[in-house]
Amino acid sequence: MSDQLTIADKTFKSRLFTGTGKFNDSAVMRDAIIASESELVTVALKRVDVNNQSDDILTHLQENHINLLPNTSGVRTAKEAVFAAELAREALNTNWIKLEIHPDPKYLLPDPIETLQAAEELVKLGFIVMPYIHADPVLCKRLEDVGTQCVMPLGAPIGSNKGLKTLEFLEIIIDQSNVPVIVDAGIGSPSHAAQAMELGADAVLVNTAIAVSQHPIDMGKAFKMAVEAGRIAYNAKLAPVKKHAEASSPLTSFLN
Amino acid sequence: MSDQLTIADKTFKSRLFTGTGKFNDSAVMRDAIIASESELVTVALKRVDVNNQSDDILTHLQENHINLLPNTSGVRTAKEAVFAAELAREALNTNWIKLEIHPDPKYLLPDPIETLQAAEELVKLGFIVMPYIHADPVLCKRLEDVGTQCVMPLGAPIGSNKGLKTLEFLEIIIDQSNVPVIVDAGIGSPSHAAQAMELGADAVLVNTAIAVSQHPIDMGKAFKMAVEAGRIAYNAKLAPVKKHAEASSPLTSFLN
Amino acid sequence: MSDQLTIADKTFKSRLFTGTGKFNDSAVMRDAIIASESELVTVALKRVDVNNQSDDILTHLQENHINLLPNTSGVRTAKEAVFAAELAREALNTNWIKLEIHPDPKYLLPDPIETLQAAEELVKLGFIVMPYIHADPVLCKRLEDVGTQCVMPLGAPIGSNKGLKTLEFLEIIIDQSNVPVIVDAGIGSPSHAAQAMELGADAVLVNTAIAVSQHPIDMGKAFKMAVEAGRIAYNAKLAPVKKHAEASSPLTSFLN
Amino acid sequence: MSDQLTIADKTFKSRLFTGTGKFNDSAVMRDAIIASESELVTVALKRVDVNNQSDDILTHLQENHINLLPNTSGVRTAKEAVFAAELAREALNTNWIKLEIHPDPKYLLPDPIETLQAAEELVKLGFIVMPYIHADPVLCKRLEDVGTQCVMPLGAPIGSNKGLKTLEFLEIIIDQSNVPVIVDAGIGSPSHAAQAMELGADAVLVNTAIAVSQHPIDMGKAFKMAVEAGRIAYNAKLAPVKKHAEASSPLTSFLN
Repeated sequence: MSDQLTIADKTFKSRLFTGTGKFNDSAVMRDAIIASESELVTVALKRVDVNNQSDDILTHLQENHINLLPNTSGVRTAKEAVFAAELAREALNTNWIKLEIHPDPKYLLPDPIETLQAAEELVKLGFIVMPYIHADPVLCKRLEDVGTQCVMPLGAPIGSNKGLKTLEFLEIIIDQSNVPVIVDAGIGSPSHAAQAMELGADAVLVNTAIAVSQHPIDMGKAFKMAVEAGRIAYNAKLAPVKKHAEASSPLTSFLN
Repeated sequence: MSDQLTIADKTFKSRLFTGTGKFNDSAVMRDAIIASESELVTVALKRVDVNNQSDDILTHLQENHINLLPNTSGVRTAKEAVFAAELAREALNTNWIKLEIHPDPKYLLPDPIETLQAAEELVKLGFIVMPYIHADPVLCKRLEDVGTQCVMPLGAPIGSNKGLKTLEFLEIIIDQSNVPVIVDAGIGSPSHAAQAMELGADAVLVNTAIAVSQHPIDMGKAFKMAVEAGRIAYNAKLAPVKKHAEASSPLTSFLN
Repeated sequence: MSDQLTIADKTFKSRLFTGTGKFNDSAVMRDAIIASESELVTVALKRVDVNNQSDDILTHLQENHINLLPNTSGVRTAKEAVFAAELAREALNTNWIKLEIHPDPKYLLPDPIETLQAAEELVKLGFIVMPYIHADPVLCKRLEDVGTQCVMPLGAPIGSNKGLKTLEFLEIIIDQSNVPVIVDAGIGSPSHAAQAMELGADAVLVNTAIAVSQHPIDMGKAFKMAVEAGRIAYNAKLAPVKKHAEASSPLTSFLN
Repeated sequence: MSDQLTIADKTFKSRLFTGTGKFNDSAVMRDAIIASESELVTVALKRVDVNNQSDDILTHLQENHINLLPNTSGVRTAKEAVFAAELAREALNTNWIKLEIHPDPKYLLPDPIETLQAAEELVKLGFIVMPYIHADPVLCKRLEDVGTQCVMPLGAPIGSNKGLKTLEFLEIIIDQSNVPVIVDAGIGSPSHAAQAMELGADAVLVNTAIAVSQHPIDMGKAFKMAVEAGRIAYNAKLAPVKKHAEASSPLTSFLN
């Protein structure tokens, strides 16, 4: 089947993007990512030691199907983000960048102003920009207008595992977007991921929920299955929600 | 892996139970049920024409791994239910019975009093009783006490596709039950099914959401995957829900 | 205005019923109940010392407008409930009884079977029966059929303050009932009480949320106002929920 | 009691702000606003005919306690907003301005970039700026930083009456803000308004839910009561939400 996701020049069979943070063990991280069948994996530039050939994370992700997606986590302004993106491009030899600008240390919510400004500049500098943002439909359209290749609205604060607390606005974003919509942050369980896909999201990004599970490898597999289930259901069209009950079995009284 | 579900003397690899109602086409029904990998399939006695060798539903479900579960849909009292169960036992040669007593034609909600009474009698008559009930934790314990082999609390009115509107009480039921808990009715999408499994339900029963989808066969497969994903996640333990954000990527300012 | 609530032979201006449990101080209890303007106040028979003229609770509720409603809290069977009701009738000189049968010590959820049985008997014995039950629409109809003067479905477990977790079913109960529907248990804030009234509930019963607030007297007043607000809104008809936005201000571009 | 709300140089006894849109009848509008006891009432500049002494809206709001708050509804950019604010200042002789910039005609959601830019400029021009925005905590802090006198995050799309769909983020905004937080848009019933106040919002703005009710005057009164109830409850501190039930009545078995 050809239900693939295309972002810029890349095509993905998997609609589950993952991350490398919070794992206790690098081998478990690798195995969980492999179990998830994710083809796009974010990595914080800080974590990559480009001068060290045996760098933990990079050496563990040398799989043919895995694309690394550097992120700008830790920056607080557009200017810092652009600088970080350029470093990442050089270090990892990729012009893909996950743009994250969250000045707030408590809730780590993204800054809409700096993000739009950085996105505009990064697009001009030839980057494939994947911006992490609040589930703000107007901001999503503005990012699309400046040339980002997707939008990545949040479901809930990063690492909160609360699920799609922005449901009402994700629906609007999906309805209006001309670029892929990837739900990022807050997805805490496979059911959340399936729900996002059923809404029509193009992909989801999951990190904490896999990494801090008691069994990250199994959880990676569970997310893989849930994302696929949600996507299949979206394509097959969900049954409508009804106000009144409708019997699945015939209602005529049995004994009549 | 040995994570199987046992009810009475049967062991199930699949934790997705399905039904035969509302399908437009019997061949599609069969293929959707096969795609779902369900091993227990409810059938309304009314639909079965036991004198007709070519009865549509029965002939389409002659698969080795599929067990038929007659239900008492259409009865309104304990007495009618017992009579229906006895007819079903004779017709289908099984002592398994899904006990459904819903006198109300608009919302099809089950009657707790008649259900408990019928359950007690059916257990004495040697039936394996699977009662469909409101998500009432006290009723669940009473059914367990009279010897039902599981309890089947509802998520929402049958056919409504509204999902787990009884979440608060399903959690209590699962916490307290000594018999398998099977969430029945209201499950409208794979994410709902995954959510039930993540809570710790032992299985789910899905009928309408598969049957009235635009592509029932694909939807059967999607539910299969979602149920498995939810079960794996339950066993792997979900990451905890947090009030504050926690970064997946290191927070130290990038440029310092 | 004549928007009064009638139950049996009594007419109430206030649609807020309250309770006497969990207050730290009897004078505060009295003042909170007075501030709430409640005219029907439940009291556990256990708490009443009928041989003691200076019994704390009774002496504090000697207000003309306050009717005491003894409850059967602590009983576990229909038989115990009937006995308790008869004691209460003699002790407090009232044939009104709030019927509560909750054998489960952890969640205190009511037993549907014992409650229906006790209700039937108490009605025959001349009681005005107000049964506390799960939000089970079929059970509500059965109680109405045996002659209870109202039904009291729960919103959430007693004392949990979680609000209307049974919303889906309260709507059905209200839609179907021919006797007053009083939402009992789980109401933790004035907004929950207003929501119940907006749905069309005839009254609400609030105890814990007033008693364990830091300022019970103020909270009693807040609940009074919220219940009235919800009732007025119900009568005035709420504006419909819309999928798309509708501007309150004219949309024509300002400068054109 | 001194629980008043201060914004810039004005003090409000009422924490319910209202609007003038969507009413069928100007006399009803006036009476509904009077019933609501609102002291701050938004008005779209487009609706005001400053050259017409008998202008409908203005003549109906000549009450001593009512302050008019012109809004910039209909503008699409920061530049248009500044121009509209200046016209409004001249026409209505007030430097207060509700800043609304929503380019999207379907959902009317506000533009974060243009809003921040206009806010900064309007503050410099001496306006008291009340910005209508998405419930974006980072944007709220940035607006506060440029000197807006409050923030007005939305609960749901304007006119949708869906309630607090942004609950998760309103809590964060209230937790972090140093200026009053006024929940605007989406509040469809008194219970929603009470809920916002219970969370700690400083005020709410309600228009559609009053204007399109079948009885706007009653609904104005209902909102007034609900807002007061929610505020009192916030000050009195809500009882905590509990996982397990806690009996309001003594649990010791009645008959022992």
